Amino acid sequence: MSDFDVNELWSVVDALADAARVETLRHFRKADLQTESKRADFDPVTVADKGAEAAMRTVLAAERPDDAILGEEFAAKEGTTGLTWVLDPIDGTRSYISGTPTWGVLIACSDANGPVLGAIDQPYIGERFYGGPGRAEVIGPMGRRALKVRGTTDLAQATLFTTFPEVGTVDEARAFRRVADRVRLTRYGCDCYAYALLAAGQIDLVIEAGLQAYDVQAPIAVIQAAGGIVTDWSGRPVHKGGQVIAAATPELHRAALALMADSL
Amino acid sequence: MSDFDVNELWSVVDALADAARVETLRHFRKADLQTESKRADFDPVTVADKGAEAAMRTVLAAERPDDAILGEEFAAKEGTTGLTWVLDPIDGTRSYISGTPTWGVLIACSDANGPVLGAIDQPYIGERFYGGPGRAEVIGPMGRRALKVRGTTDLAQATLFTTFPEVGTVDEARAFRRVADRVRLTRYGCDCYAYALLAAGQIDLVIEAGLQAYDVQAPIAVIQAAGGIVTDWSGRPVHKGGQVIAAATPELHRAALALMADSL
Repeated sequence: MSDFDVNELWSVVDALADAARVETLRHFRKADLQTESKRADFDPVTVADKGAEAAMRTVLAAERPDDAILGEEFAAKEGTTGLTWVLDPIDGTRSYISGTPTWGVLIACSDANGPVLGAIDQPYIGERFYGGPGRAEVIGPMGRRALKVRGTTDLAQATLFTTFPEVGTVDEARAFRRVADRVRLTRYGCDCYAYALLAAGQIDLVIEAGLQAYDVQAPIAVIQAAGGIVTDWSGRPVHKGGQVIAAATPELHRAALALMADSL
Repeated sequence: MSDFDVNELWSVVDALADAARVETLRHFRKADLQTESKRADFDPVTVADKGAEAAMRTVLAAERPDDAILGEEFAAKEGTTGLTWVLDPIDGTRSYISGTPTWGVLIACSDANGPVLGAIDQPYIGERFYGGPGRAEVIGPMGRRALKVRGTTDLAQATLFTTFPEVGTVDEARAFRRVADRVRLTRYGCDCYAYALLAAGQIDLVIEAGLQAYDVQAPIAVIQAAGGIVTDWSGRPVHKGGQVIAAATPELHRAALALMADSL
């Protein structure tokens, strides 16, 4: 791990989230929001995505000019400190353009081993989930609260979230269904907010495929700080993206991986 | 329509929503929240549901003792005024017990022809959507804003919401899929919040099955006041519940009904 002042990094996290918040709320639920499609199957990018990432990069240029940046909307920037800011200005753009309050701004600060600390911010609700060394908390409508995963160990008692019912490829969807068929409750549509709910002890599992590094690094930081587990579907580190499983307990993680391995 | 003072009714709506809010937030995201299942396939009822409806009934006993009450959790109460308060203390209990901010408190005041006015309240966000004679607005994190459906007329440009991917029966799911296959974007998991988003001009269609009167009357009031359409899947009044379609425009409504009729 690099040499750094964690308090300084937390103040940068807040400055980044505050800057992104202004840009995302400037356009949220406005009638004139324009979207353009990055891919044939409708991956919307809005002026808000780009504006929020640009605003965060301006903060970093002033506060942490020697750190690297990996963001969704603009080219990666190299650094010299060993630290990289990993930014998703709007995780859940489909939620954002639909007016749903379950998109988020994802901010992580990482070294070569993965995220050191991170935050999931929901600007419309006014809710920020933090996770890093010695810190796991949310500040929101109910004030400041500790984040701690809950102790569910039995799949039959678990609540599972994912964003899209189709999950990913046909094989990935089949693996997901093997777990979904065993849990008490499966819910869809929350994007990064599902990871925040897991850290907050509200749900037990999140399973997704096809994620990028900037989709997963902030969730990893927040969930690990809250006592949870985030890996790929083989149990390996997943901070570079791919097939992601987040679990509240080792028991649930092991049981879900075993079910998915049987169908992959 | 019965003889009544609409301003008095609106003040009762706020009193009801405020009373329910205290009860729902008392338990929201608490670790000790207990759920019991009403049915074998897990329909959770929490102390919050019952507490919130009881609190609303207490308000009505004081403010509108002669009106009827139809609520989800307790027996119907008869009245003598021709007005009925139709209450769902927590629409989206599965969302609520998962910590998601897309459940809501549904309040409608109806006469023999259906809802006269209503509100969808999201206590955690602090957001209340109102619809009735001369009133269509939301008060929330961004202040007070008019509610108005947007003008999408082409299914290929539409955003469609429903709560569960399975929708209802196999036939109902097939009808839903005929529409889902034609729209730009389909999203899941929002419960009553999807109707609020339609009224706010953020999405274009909501299609659900198996709803009760208390699930749909407040959404009808809010969406109709915002210029939208809510009917059953045959185009008939749906305030008594059943298969519901809400559409931003007559063109979308007609196109979706035609597609569903072909598969039912």
